[in-house]
Amino acid sequence: MSQKRIAIFGSTGSIGTQALDVIAANPDLFTAEILTAQTNDTLLISQALRFNPNIVVIGDERRYPAVKEALAGTSIKVFAGEAAIEEAAAMDCYDMMLAAIVGYAGLRPTLRAIEISKPIALANKETLVVAGDIIMRKAMEKRIPIIPVDSEHSAIFQCLVGEGRNKIEKIVLTASGGPFLGKKPNFLVNVKKDHALQHPNWSMGAKITIDSATLMNKGLEMIEAKWLFNLSYEQVQVMVHPQSIIHSMVQFEDGSIKAQMGLPDMKLPIQYAMAFPNRIANDFPRYDFKKPATLTFEDPDIKTFRNLALAMEALRLGGNMPCILNAANEIAVYAFLKNRIGFLDMTEVVEQTMAKIAFIENPTLEEYFETDGEARNFAASLIHM
Amino acid sequence: MSQKRIAIFGSTGSIGTQALDVIAANPDLFTAEILTAQTNDTLLISQALRFNPNIVVIGDERRYPAVKEALAGTSIKVFAGEAAIEEAAAMDCYDMMLAAIVGYAGLRPTLRAIEISKPIALANKETLVVAGDIIMRKAMEKRIPIIPVDSEHSAIFQCLVGEGRNKIEKIVLTASGGPFLGKKPNFLVNVKKDHALQHPNWSMGAKITIDSATLMNKGLEMIEAKWLFNLSYEQVQVMVHPQSIIHSMVQFEDGSIKAQMGLPDMKLPIQYAMAFPNRIANDFPRYDFKKPATLTFEDPDIKTFRNLALAMEALRLGGNMPCILNAANEIAVYAFLKNRIGFLDMTEVVEQTMAKIAFIENPTLEEYFETDGEARNFAASLIHM
Repeated sequence: MSQKRIAIFGSTGSIGTQALDVIAANPDLFTAEILTAQTNDTLLISQALRFNPNIVVIGDERRYPAVKEALAGTSIKVFAGEAAIEEAAAMDCYDMMLAAIVGYAGLRPTLRAIEISKPIALANKETLVVAGDIIMRKAMEKRIPIIPVDSEHSAIFQCLVGEGRNKIEKIVLTASGGPFLGKKPNFLVNVKKDHALQHPNWSMGAKITIDSATLMNKGLEMIEAKWLFNLSYEQVQVMVHPQSIIHSMVQFEDGSIKAQMGLPDMKLPIQYAMAFPNRIANDFPRYDFKKPATLTFEDPDIKTFRNLALAMEALRLGGNMPCILNAANEIAVYAFLKNRIGFLDMTEVVEQTMAKIAFIENPTLEEYFETDGEARNFAASLIHM
Repeated sequence: MSQKRIAIFGSTGSIGTQALDVIAANPDLFTAEILTAQTNDTLLISQALRFNPNIVVIGDERRYPAVKEALAGTSIKVFAGEAAIEEAAAMDCYDMMLAAIVGYAGLRPTLRAIEISKPIALANKETLVVAGDIIMRKAMEKRIPIIPVDSEHSAIFQCLVGEGRNKIEKIVLTASGGPFLGKKPNFLVNVKKDHALQHPNWSMGAKITIDSATLMNKGLEMIEAKWLFNLSYEQVQVMVHPQSIIHSMVQFEDGSIKAQMGLPDMKLPIQYAMAFPNRIANDFPRYDFKKPATLTFEDPDIKTFRNLALAMEALRLGGNMPCILNAANEIAVYAFLKNRIGFLDMTEVVEQTMAKIAFIENPTLEEYFETDGEARNFAASLIHM
């Protein structure tokens, strides 16, 4: 395996920092070619000094002088602003993009990378939720792989290697159930940010941790899976599996089920996506079949966790509905993180936005962009932001 | 997929009859080209009349006239005797051998099939237990696949497709634990044949069902797995999993575990081996993640089920020791099935035979045959057969 030059879009987040750990542990296999961050200039600077990339981009232009000055003695090229992040994605100096920008903001750079035929390690599920049809069609045209980093989708991807044209009967996304598994609305109504940010199994960024607590994350994953694996609504199932050992499963048309398992640790799917089709020996902690020795399954409670029901409805309807769902949810989650709205209000915001914004069955990319803007504005108006 | 001509060696047993069910359900994919049986002439005749094979062989020569007469009006060629079974395996009229003869008797026909480069669907684990090094070396030379039919090994085989040169860290064979899971020697000493033949999860032939009750079956599977997947002693682990939903697992060197799951049903691995690399749509019952909704793991109790400890020792020692273990075990199991010895006596027979017969580190095929004979004779002498 020759050295692979990785462009990490979103290098200061949870996925980005762990990807750099993988690169640091395997310097013969990987280099960091591009690093981008939105606001965390301090961490971006220290990452740049350590990994000596070709290019760094800071999204927030006010932080450009600090980054530029700190890297003045190096050969690293420094850029700033949203447009520069997109332009960096279009530069033909890397071998794989790790798309780890959180939320809708990850869409445009990922599209640019696909346009210049770069394989994508996709850690940004919103990209596929918003415009999965367009992304997958373009990737198909360019014959580049979209390798999922989400642990559930990585599990399914790993189960599908070598299966050729064998047909999928269904996939089963496992869900930990989040910190509020078994709770009812009378409990959830009073949940505060600090509690919702405490996930029992996974260590992740703030946005995805809140989405896990509301089960919206699982709904977004259902939509992501539909596009990644070319499935119908009926072929995507969710089972709550509180131990988070089985990361997801595929059932083939002969009834055989394949599962991928292990301790919950995002480094494994990150490393897998970066090294695919190879696996890299490592000393990550192993699951030993005794802690836990019991694995359980149960149906998700979509009457209580209505975000999941809304996402299933968006998946079923298709068109721009997942885009509306996602935009409203991003606004709602950030409002919740700022203590502007309550836990259950997030669902209200999403539901009302889905009811309000015009449905488009086969949107163009521009219509997706417009839908996203309209949905955000309407959702924000509900919160009086 | 063109029509595959299957030679079923051992067509009247549990695996053989289920394989014919698969052929009957998929007449466009498979034909039955050769059918062989040891003693069950009645069933062999009815199978031949239904599937119209090219050749049938009855092992027990006394039953030849009955078979010959019953098939007189057909174009089916009828042969009899052990030698004829071997010779049928050497006939170049089929595309795949399903090796479903029980025990050591399956070894010679399988070798003949490999010599004429026929892919093997291997349901006879004793073949690899006795002479795994020679079988796998010959298969490698002829570049033919040995596709396991045992549910555990089929599970691992399914998990390995598409993994290329990715290294296995270990495999985990799951064991139901059999009907006496949790029992201690003071209980086992009084166990009778009828009780031992009642397996909680799997419907199988008598020999393998007794081996499952003593855990010898899992020991034989460990040895089989070593040869099939080119593993060391340390890389083969057993976990008791009483629900028999996870059929076995592979852990790769990156720590990722892949498992194959489903309801316990031998038809699936039989069909998979016959159709590999394709899967065939079917209406076999599906596992729905609720019955059972709880999957558990525990260590096997090798102090009580000492057959498993003996098999692990044979695996560790290598050479002709697995052959000795297997020969003694076959004698012991048939003595138990004839109510000649008790449940725990089976272990005594195996242990004493392993202590008695001369160890050979790198046996030739002839030495394996000699070892088998000596071990059988000694084991029989212990039982006064």
